[in-house]
Parts: sequence; structure tokens; C-alpha cells
Amino acid sequence: MTCTCYYLGGMDKVGRKIGLGVLGAGRQGRIHINNIARMIPQAKLVAVADPNRENLSRLGVEGVRLCEDSSEIFNDSSIEAIVIASSTDSHEEMILRACRTKKHVFCEKPLALQIEVIDRCLDEVKNSGIKFMMGFNRRFDPSLAKIRAMVAEGKIGRPEIIAITSRDPNPPHLEYLKVSGGIFFDTTVHDFDMARYIMHDEIDEVYATGNNLFSDEIKACGDLDTAITLLKFKKGALGSINNSRRAVYGFDQRVEVFGSKGLLTAHNVKETHVEHKDGNGCHMDKHLYFFTERYQESYLYEIMHFIDALLNNTEMPVTGRDAKISVLLSMAAKKSFEENRPVKVDYSSVS
Amino acid sequence: MTCTCYYLGGMDKVGRKIGLGVLGAGRQGRIHINNIARMIPQAKLVAVADPNRENLSRLGVEGVRLCEDSSEIFNDSSIEAIVIASSTDSHEEMILRACRTKKHVFCEKPLALQIEVIDRCLDEVKNSGIKFMMGFNRRFDPSLAKIRAMVAEGKIGRPEIIAITSRDPNPPHLEYLKVSGGIFFDTTVHDFDMARYIMHDEIDEVYATGNNLFSDEIKACGDLDTAITLLKFKKGALGSINNSRRAVYGFDQRVEVFGSKGLLTAHNVKETHVEHKDGNGCHMDKHLYFFTERYQESYLYEIMHFIDALLNNTEMPVTGRDAKISVLLSMAAKKSFEENRPVKVDYSSVS
Amino acid sequence: MTCTCYYLGGMDKVGRKIGLGVLGAGRQGRIHINNIARMIPQAKLVAVADPNRENLSRLGVEGVRLCEDSSEIFNDSSIEAIVIASSTDSHEEMILRACRTKKHVFCEKPLALQIEVIDRCLDEVKNSGIKFMMGFNRRFDPSLAKIRAMVAEGKIGRPEIIAITSRDPNPPHLEYLKVSGGIFFDTTVHDFDMARYIMHDEIDEVYATGNNLFSDEIKACGDLDTAITLLKFKKGALGSINNSRRAVYGFDQRVEVFGSKGLLTAHNVKETHVEHKDGNGCHMDKHLYFFTERYQESYLYEIMHFIDALLNNTEMPVTGRDAKISVLLSMAAKKSFEENRPVKVDYSSVS
Amino acid sequence: MTCTCYYLGGMDKVGRKIGLGVLGAGRQGRIHINNIARMIPQAKLVAVADPNRENLSRLGVEGVRLCEDSSEIFNDSSIEAIVIASSTDSHEEMILRACRTKKHVFCEKPLALQIEVIDRCLDEVKNSGIKFMMGFNRRFDPSLAKIRAMVAEGKIGRPEIIAITSRDPNPPHLEYLKVSGGIFFDTTVHDFDMARYIMHDEIDEVYATGNNLFSDEIKACGDLDTAITLLKFKKGALGSINNSRRAVYGFDQRVEVFGSKGLLTAHNVKETHVEHKDGNGCHMDKHLYFFTERYQESYLYEIMHFIDALLNNTEMPVTGRDAKISVLLSMAAKKSFEENRPVKVDYSSVS
Repeated sequence: MTCTCYYLGGMDKVGRKIGLGVLGAGRQGRIHINNIARMIPQAKLVAVADPNRENLSRLGVEGVRLCEDSSEIFNDSSIEAIVIASSTDSHEEMILRACRTKKHVFCEKPLALQIEVIDRCLDEVKNSGIKFMMGFNRRFDPSLAKIRAMVAEGKIGRPEIIAITSRDPNPPHLEYLKVSGGIFFDTTVHDFDMARYIMHDEIDEVYATGNNLFSDEIKACGDLDTAITLLKFKKGALGSINNSRRAVYGFDQRVEVFGSKGLLTAHNVKETHVEHKDGNGCHMDKHLYFFTERYQESYLYEIMHFIDALLNNTEMPVTGRDAKISVLLSMAAKKSFEENRPVKVDYSSVS
Repeated sequence: MTCTCYYLGGMDKVGRKIGLGVLGAGRQGRIHINNIARMIPQAKLVAVADPNRENLSRLGVEGVRLCEDSSEIFNDSSIEAIVIASSTDSHEEMILRACRTKKHVFCEKPLALQIEVIDRCLDEVKNSGIKFMMGFNRRFDPSLAKIRAMVAEGKIGRPEIIAITSRDPNPPHLEYLKVSGGIFFDTTVHDFDMARYIMHDEIDEVYATGNNLFSDEIKACGDLDTAITLLKFKKGALGSINNSRRAVYGFDQRVEVFGSKGLLTAHNVKETHVEHKDGNGCHMDKHLYFFTERYQESYLYEIMHFIDALLNNTEMPVTGRDAKISVLLSMAAKKSFEENRPVKVDYSSVS
Repeated sequence: MTCTCYYLGGMDKVGRKIGLGVLGAGRQGRIHINNIARMIPQAKLVAVADPNRENLSRLGVEGVRLCEDSSEIFNDSSIEAIVIASSTDSHEEMILRACRTKKHVFCEKPLALQIEVIDRCLDEVKNSGIKFMMGFNRRFDPSLAKIRAMVAEGKIGRPEIIAITSRDPNPPHLEYLKVSGGIFFDTTVHDFDMARYIMHDEIDEVYATGNNLFSDEIKACGDLDTAITLLKFKKGALGSINNSRRAVYGFDQRVEVFGSKGLLTAHNVKETHVEHKDGNGCHMDKHLYFFTERYQESYLYEIMHFIDALLNNTEMPVTGRDAKISVLLSMAAKKSFEENRPVKVDYSSVS
Repeated sequence: MTCTCYYLGGMDKVGRKIGLGVLGAGRQGRIHINNIARMIPQAKLVAVADPNRENLSRLGVEGVRLCEDSSEIFNDSSIEAIVIASSTDSHEEMILRACRTKKHVFCEKPLALQIEVIDRCLDEVKNSGIKFMMGFNRRFDPSLAKIRAMVAEGKIGRPEIIAITSRDPNPPHLEYLKVSGGIFFDTTVHDFDMARYIMHDEIDEVYATGNNLFSDEIKACGDLDTAITLLKFKKGALGSINNSRRAVYGFDQRVEVFGSKGLLTAHNVKETHVEHKDGNGCHMDKHLYFFTERYQESYLYEIMHFIDALLNNTEMPVTGRDAKISVLLSMAAKKSFEENRPVKVDYSSVS
């Protein structure tokens, strides 16, 4: 909604363009391909690589090289930066190759599920001097970004409590579940990042609980379908994250921050603005169905920020450090659940 | 708002009336005195007792005996039932005297802060055969009662998560804080009762955390100003209670139940229904200030239910067992906070 | 909702009380009887008169004389003021007798449907020196009163447009329809008064249109079931009143004032604050059913204002002049509809 | 918001593409240029013509011919259809040239302000056999389109009243005002079309009133800044349109339809979904500023519908007849205001 001005302003001629390659043309990759190809005048989509020929053959972009072998991207000197949207287990290789070929990296979350892999990647990124951004897209949602800014401006005084509700409309497919790392690595990780982003503070200790209340399939994967995680921040604030993998009324994404001078809430978004009243009461639409709808703008904005940081040689808005901390938090939550006790987050390896 | 029909229907002649005496004419007592004297045709307010002569002298009720000595109430055979709104430390004595003089009892919360005292009272109530109701008024709030009913009707399928937000506009006075038993006994206790009431289930384990984020006075009392308590229910559901003793935007009282087929939310109530839009945005009133405003109707309805149960010789809607369990939950929460670990609730002494 | 403080403060002793008699114990009368007998410490309900013995016999008030002959009220020197809630055709006689017996008058709307009758009554009121208040209860609704106050404070700058939506849940009974004077005298009259009250201005010209869209019964009475009336105010502002005699979703009562610096809206009131989300969308309760629910507080507050004005010897907040102007507006609207042309309101006889 | 699926689906390869030329690269033209160039895979933007070289030189589209002389568009055989977004006084010429060169036409509103011009254009369109669509973009707003569909499905039974609120944030520039034809031709015309679209009925009679309440500039142009127009539909329903050329709280665009079985409302859209509560109350953002923001999606969707109708050889969703009727309604409203009397709409020349 708020990207209007951009769309229109976007008709104006721009100066330098950044040549981009996208790795992965699956569901996530297509979002970025669409935004880069159409919506960002300062970006030029040069090539898309995907080992799955079918993914490529469906793409309707014109003037873009489609390749099964990602080497074509790494070898193309007109490509200054890559967007990694391939499967999680390929991230390490892609990042290391980008480091070697000096291409800047935008990497979809999660960077990796193991701290060792993350450390290896981030070390190499540092040594190579390339720029690196993690795709925590929700930070670029206009409502959530506004809440962060209002907290920073002191609109609610000292933030004391953050309460995040984050429920998916439906569980992911079994294939995905098996490699997702579990609810704390796959779902709560977004909320951990949001909590840090909005509170301008780090989480010191977590206590996580969860259960299998509706899905035997998820249970069979050794994963949870429902979880609540309690947070204690370093500066003393408290928080809670309320997760479920299924909400029949649609994607439920709310953030509320309570402070000494007030309360900020990011409400859900409904499909339309129509209200219907009848003999049974007052009715409105369901929420937007899932992240592709609810967070559509945020995907555009995150790539715009990436391009901006490249053009202006400024710091990336989401760093490898953010990626690492979110995984440390997921690890702590998992451990807390398994041992049914509060767990301190171990920041010893975070620089 | 919804008591309208009652008010109007209330003009009709009624049959038998229950003679009532009220013990305590302080803030809480005055609410009951007002409702009984004016709003409930089936009740006749016979006498009010308060050792504080000033409390009595301010009362504007007519045709009601005002006495400093509560014996006048216990000795009056026209009084069938008493409402105990005196200080918590007098509850035991008043209940035992009511048992001896065979007067039914409506007792303000908390019954007592010690399990031994509660057991002593409830044993005596049982032996004496009088009827006994606890004043968990929020159960009679039309919105909260509706949510409970809708859960019972299966409107949201199996309830999986309850999330309660309960924040006072301002901390109580120091005098009160000192004898309140602390946030878990004074504030969270209401939310524990609400959680049981709405989930139709018992809480098996709690994990409570809290902090002193804004009030040195509360800290000096050895109490907390902010707390989040996590709940695990016997049937597997999860819950959270989010408390603060200060909310600058007014009393914040929300309950949300998430289930396999949907979500139920009781929203806050604003002072008026006026919206004001200007160059800065869209504005509405603050929430109703505190419990006397927000829960006004519930105080009337709880006494109406008490009177109804007496007239029809039916079971009381809130029992001594409810009072005991709520204190057991507060005790578990306090222990959990002190030891920073989840604590199982000990139901061994609950019949 | 907002009467809370009053209820509680109401327990305090008061000084002088005004002795009151109520004429008429039908639906409207019972609202006043209930409020006077129970809710207003400064009022003492001395007697109720109604020629219909059944109406009286149902009343549950104690210590109040119930009489079939209204003379008992006019002859009772302990009665300082009367509330006229008898049938419209009796108003003139009751007012004239009150003038002769020097009892102040609160009169339900409409005073009368003929300007001559109104003038006769108001002349006599003036000559007798009694105080007189008209029962335009909606002026005392907390939301509507707040809007008026905010307009007066300049919160929206110069008021330019008022838009009133006013729809009943169901048409009145045929008996009532026949004597009501028609939709402009029975329904729109409230909205005319509201428009004047909120705009702090007089209506110069009206254009009214209407139709029979759903009720043959109403059509057979020569009345309309649906109407829209357009208003031009003396200071240049415009307005519209949108009426229907049937709204399946409940009483629809909204007022919106648009001004040079913003917009004020009084929204509808729902039965509870519960929201229910499911696979079909988001649902809330219906509006409060009708005026006895929606405007409950306003009936209490109008009598409180009447009593206050008597105790403090101040001006009445709604005058006979207001009653007369509202009828002049209804007459102009009816004429406009009949002749299908805009009609100037004739204020020549208004002092 | 709801265009999400389109964006993503849009990545898929498409079959035939329609070659398009855009006439006019001003504010309105740029909206269409952006949508056609980027958002609609089935459209190929071949050329843009604008006599103002500066408008062209700012455009950032690639692979598109930019020409000062529109002949280049009419002479280009790869262009199957044109979008007319040039000044209103050029519309006739452009349409006639399109008829001669057999190019389909999408024409921005208003087609023309004179019925003779409209008739001449529509006759030629008919004779030439080209397809013609009018740009009443609001019909393609997801909320308004949903309301129309729900009315058609009988969700509110028989529609009885439509109430449209339509207020601009700020008056247009003086230059535009002078040639706009006045408020009824420039602003209300959209609402007339919306009323017809949603009610599935024609307007039989209008009564319009207006005033100059805040702008001397508008007054000097002989135009109004504020207007209310009352509608009577052929099937008996009633309606009102409430216009102002200035709303400090942002673009105010609401439509409400009342029927025998309920009420449908299209609410306004706020900038974000953030709510802020503090000691003064509850606050939300302003409305989206103006039509480029509020109706952004509708501009995309209308062109998509145009392309779809061309690809599938189906009827255009907005016709020349719609354009003509909207102007007849504006003419009737203007006459009604000038003569201060209701005016029947003259449909004698409408086929």
C-alpha cells in the first residue's frame, strides 16, 4: 500500500544500476525475481540460476539469462551482487563462492542451522570484503518498521514488555518440516529477530514450552505444532512469543510493545476493507492468507534497501551477526523446551 | 450496557426477597451496597456494618441499619445472607461466625492468603451447610462470560492457547501493597481464575517471571511491578498472562482464546464511542479507567447470581474450591519466580 | 458505562431532595420511574399516576403512591415537579394543570404535533413561572454530548457538514404509527434536534425525500418507511439525515460532523466487546437492539439534569423553544416531501 | 494488497501480448505507463506520446519509443490499443483517430464534458468496430468491487439506500479547476458512477445542493467547495453523495449500502496498521493521502481488465454508455443546484 510513491517515482530515469543474479527460482526466489525485474529501477536482473529446469522454464522475465548451472552467475562480471534463494543446505557453498568471486550477497533466512557453518561463512565474508545482508524481510514491513522507529523516538517511553503473536495459516509440507530445524528455528526465529529489532535490546534468557495439539505428522517429525516462548531482555524488559502452525482464520501476525508512556500495536491486515452487518452481527474479511500476501511489500523493500546500501556504500540493515544471534536464540529455546527450564543465551562467540 | 433489560424488568413486582447484610463499607463494600440497595429487586439490604464510623456516616441509603459492630448483623434473624467486603484478615472470623449463625456468605476475594485458613473456612462452611460464593466478579462480565460460553459451545473447536493481558492503570497504595501478598496473589490471581473459567480446564504447571521496571516503592515491598506467567493446562493447552501494575492509557483487560476452529477475543472498552480525525491521524478515547468502571456490570451480576442461587437453591457459580485453587496457583507462580524454574501445581489437598 | 462514578458517588448522603410525580407508567414512563426511584439520590419518587390499572399493578417500587387519577399528583404539595410520559394527546392538559398547580415539568417528546397547541402550552408555562424541560434524551448520550462539546471547543474548526444515520431495528406497532404524525414527526424529529444541538446553528431550509420500500402497513397509514432529508444551515453548513424504520442488524445511530480541521464521529454500540474469527472471517456482535438499550444512560442523565436545574435554579438544558423548532422542522420536511421541493423553515413565530 | 497473487503468478510465461501506446505522460499517464510497463505480462508498452518533451525525458522505461507526435502511435501497426491520458480537450481527436486507425481505446475520464462530443465519439467507436473502455478506476478497487458483487449475490437483500462519502484531501490547482467543469463533473461524477455500479440501477432524479465554505479561489471560478447530492433510483431506492474538496485527515472514500437484509460498508484505508495508545487516548494513522495511494490497485486492475477483454474478445467492463450517463447525471446535478429544485435525468438520448 505504502509503496505507491515508489511505484510512481519509479518511472523516473535512474543513474547507475546494479547487475544482479538470483540463485533459486522456487517460491521464495520468484518473489525476488519479480521485484528485481519489475519494481526496482536501480536494479538490473542479469541472470537466474536453478538446477531445476522446470522452475526456469516457467519464468516469464525477458532479457534475463536462465541457467541451470550457478557458475554462469559467479563467472559473469556484469553481476555485482547475488540473491541467494536456493535451499538452505546450499547457502554455505554459494556464500563462499560469492566471496571468492567478490559478489555482494543477499541471503534468504536461515543462513544455516549450525553455528559452525554460520561462523565459517561470516569469517569468509569479512575476509573477502564483500557486503552481506540477511533476508529478515519482516523488518521492512511498514507497520513493524514504524513501531521500531516509534520506540526509538521514545513515543512509549522505556519499553517494558513485548508480546508477539505469530501463527501460520497452515503447517508447511512434510518435506519442508523434515529439514526446517523445528518450530524454534523455522517460525520463532522470525519473532526472535523482531523482538530484538523492536526492543533495541538483546535477549538474555528464554523459557520455551510447546506441545503437539493437532498434528500427528508434525509430532512424527519430532517437532511441535504450538509453542510459547518467554523472553528476558538484558535491560530488564520481558517478552512473550505465541506461535502456532495453524490458524483457520488466516495468518496471525501481531506485535505489541508496552512501555512506560504507552502501548504500540501492529494489527493484522484483512483482505478488504468491507464490513457486512446482518441479523447475526458484524462481519469482516479474513486476514491476508500468508506471508506472500501479508509481507508482500516487505520483500520489495528489503531488496530496495540492499540495492541502496550497495549504491551508497553504506552498512547493510540486516547483518550476519543478526543471523547468528537469531540461531543462538533458536538453539536456546530448543534446549529450554527439551530440559523444561529457562536457558541463558550464550553470546560468548558473538563479536 | 447489557443490563438494560434488567433495569427495566426490574420495575416489575417480585416475590420473595432475600434479607442481606454487608460487612465493610469501604470502596469494595460501597459497590455492593449500591447494587443491593438499588438495582436488585429480589434483595433487601437490611444492615451495613463497618468499624469505621466515617465510612458509615457517608452512606446515603435509606431504611438500612448502619452499625459499627458486626454482631448486629449476625444476630439479626431477618438477614439470611451476608456479603463480606471487610479487610482480608477479617474474612476467616466473619465466615466462621456466619457458619455458626447459619447465614449464607458471599465473600470478596481473596478468601485468605494462607491455605490453612482457606481449608479451615471451607471445612466449616461444609459442616454448617450454608451456601458460599467467592467474588470473582470478572466471571460475570458480559464479554468474558460470552467467551466462556462460546468455548463451551465449541465455537473455536478445541481451545489450544489462552493469552490474557491484565494491566492496572496505576499501582495500589503502599498500605495495600504491603498486605496484598504480592502481584501473583493480588493481580494474577484474577487471571488464573479467568484462565480456568474460560478454558474449562485446570493448570498443571506454571513458569513465572517478573521484574521491577518502574517502581522503587513496589520493589521496597519485595514485590514486582511487571510479570509474565506461562501456563500449561492438564489437557495440553498453553497460556500466558501478561501483567503490569501501571498502564498510562488506562485499564488494559483483554482475553484471547485460540482454538482449532478459530479465535475469540474480549477487547478493551473505551470511555465513549467518539472518533476524532484530524491532520495527525485518527483518535479515540482512553480505556475505561479501572475496575469500578470496566467491571461495573460484573459486580451487579455476581450479586444477582448469588441471590438467584439462594432463591432457587441451586449451586453457587463460584465456589470455595475456586478460591483455594486460585491461591494454589498464586503460590506456585511465586515459587516459580523465586526459584526461576517451572513449578507443578500441587492439587493433592483439593477435593 | 460512564455513569459508574455517579452510581458510586451516589451512595453518599445528599442534601435536599426534589419530590417527583410521574404521569404514565407505560414503556417510556417505566424508564423514568426506574431511574428516579433507584438511581438519583437527589430525587424522591412520591407518586405515579396511570389510568391503566394494570400498568400500575406491575410496578415493583416501594414507598410510592400509585394512583389512577392524576389529580392525586397535582394535589400533592410534596410533589415539586412532574414527569409527563403519558400519551401525546394528554400532554397539553397535563402541562396546563402543572402550570396552575405550580409544578415544574419534564415532558416527553413530542410536546404536541400542532404548533397552536405548543404555543398555548409554552405561553402558559411562561406566564406561570414554572420550569419546563423537553425530553430530547439523545442530547445526554455521552458520545453525542462529547461531540457537541468538541465542536464548541473548535476541535474540528468550522463545522461544514453533519451526516446523521438513524435507523430503527423495527417499525413501531400499527396503533402507534397511526398517531405518530409520520416519520418526520416521529423519527427525524430526533435527528433535527441532534443536528441543531451539534451544529450550534439553526436549519434554514430542508429538502426531504422518502419512499415505501418494505412495509405495506406503513404505506397504508400514509406514512413512509425510508427517508433522506437534506439540510441547509443558516451559517452555510450542509447536512443529511438518513432514516429507515427497519435495520436487521440492530439500531443504527451514527452522527458525523465534518469541519475545516477534522471529523468527529459517534459510532454505534455493540452488545459485547467480543470478536470471533473463524474460517469465514472476523465477526462481532450486533448493535444494541433499540433505544432502551442504546440510550439507557441518556434517560438517566436527562432526569439528573432536570433535577440539577431545579436544585440550583439554573436554566433547563432543553427548552420549549427547542420543542417548537423541532416540530417546525418536521412540518417543513413533510411539506418538502409532499411538494417535492426544498422548503424554507418558517421561524416567524419563534421568539 | 490483493494483487499479490497476480504479481507472483505474473512471473509465469504468457502467451500473446497486446501492443500498447500511451497518449499523455503527465500524472495520470505515468500511472498507466508504470502499470503497463512493469505489472502486466500480457501487455507490451510500445510507445508513449506527449507533446511536452519534459514529461517524456523524465520517463525511466526501457525499450519504449518516446515521441512528441502522437501520429507515431497511430501509425505503428504493432500497437493494437491505446490508452488516452492526455488533456480532456484532446480526447475527441484521439478517439476519432483511433477509430480511423482501428486501435482499441482505453480513455481516462471524463470522455468529454459535452454530450454532443460524447455522442460523436461513441457513434464513431460503434461504426469503426473498435473496443472502447472508460477509465472509471474505482470500480476495480477490491473493496468496492466486493460490495457490488455482494449486492448482486443478494447478501443484503433488496438495496434501499446508498450513502457515499467522497472528500478530497485538498482542492486541485486553479488551472485544473478552471477546466474541470465544476465539482459535479469532476468529483461527484465518480460517485454517480459508483452509485450506479453498486446499486445495479439507474438514477431517476437528483437534488443537489452546495456551498462555498472555505475557498475563495474555488468560488472565484464559479465552482463549489462542498456539495451534497440526493439520489432517487428508478427502482425506488434512495441515495446521498457527500462531497468536499478538502479533508485535513486525508482522502475520505466510503460507500455504504443499506438493504432489507443488512448493511455493507467500504471503510477508509489507513497508512499503516499501527495503533498507539498513550495518556491521551488511542491513535491510528491518517488515511492514505489521495487517489494515487488509495486507488493504486484499481488503476492496475482496470488496465488488466482492458487487456483481458481484448485478449478474450469479451465486452468491456466500463462502456461509453457509462461515460455518457455519468455526464448526464452531472448535468442534472448542476441544473438542480442552479435552480434549487429536484431534476429528472433525461435518458432520451441513451440507447
